[in-house]
Amino acid sequence: MKVQVRVMPKAGILDPQGKAIAGALARLGFEGVGDVRAGKVFRLDVAETDPAKAKEAAARMAGTLLANPVIEDYEVEVVP
Amino acid sequence: MKVQVRVMPKAGILDPQGKAIAGALARLGFEGVGDVRAGKVFRLDVAETDPAKAKEAAARMAGTLLANPVIEDYEVEVVP
Repeated sequence: MKVQVRVMPKAGILDPQGKAIAGALARLGFEGVGDVRAGKVFRLDVAETDPAKAKEAAARMAGTLLANPVIEDYEVEVVP
Repeated sequence: MKVQVRVMPKAGILDPQGKAIAGALARLGFEGVGDVRAGKVFRLDVAETDPAKAKEAAARMAGTLLANPVIEDYEVEVVP
């Protein structure tokens, strides 16, 4: 079973990478782009076959290793 | 309108960050984790109000700046 963990900077936390991307997009001629937030995404193959248990395990992995809960939020979902 | 661009290493492309995470999870006692792939995710506020046009513009941004199409795949979706 595959689970996806998406890690994003919390609302209100400065995101310099997102800011740089927004600036670069404007310089490249892309118009109408406002705020950009940059995060990370992880896809994990897990042996667990129960979707609820797989999500619960992935949430523990996110809280322990994949995300920094002080400045980042994470979302876990089972993916096909 | 918010669009999300998810950028992942193409299948078959070595992902050292994913490998390192898989090793770290095993050392932390998380069992049953196989392959891990690490990618990036971007959330962009765009002025465009037509979802199809917003997705099309975000796909051009991904192909130009956000992803390296030689080694990365990207997926664009409109998010709430």
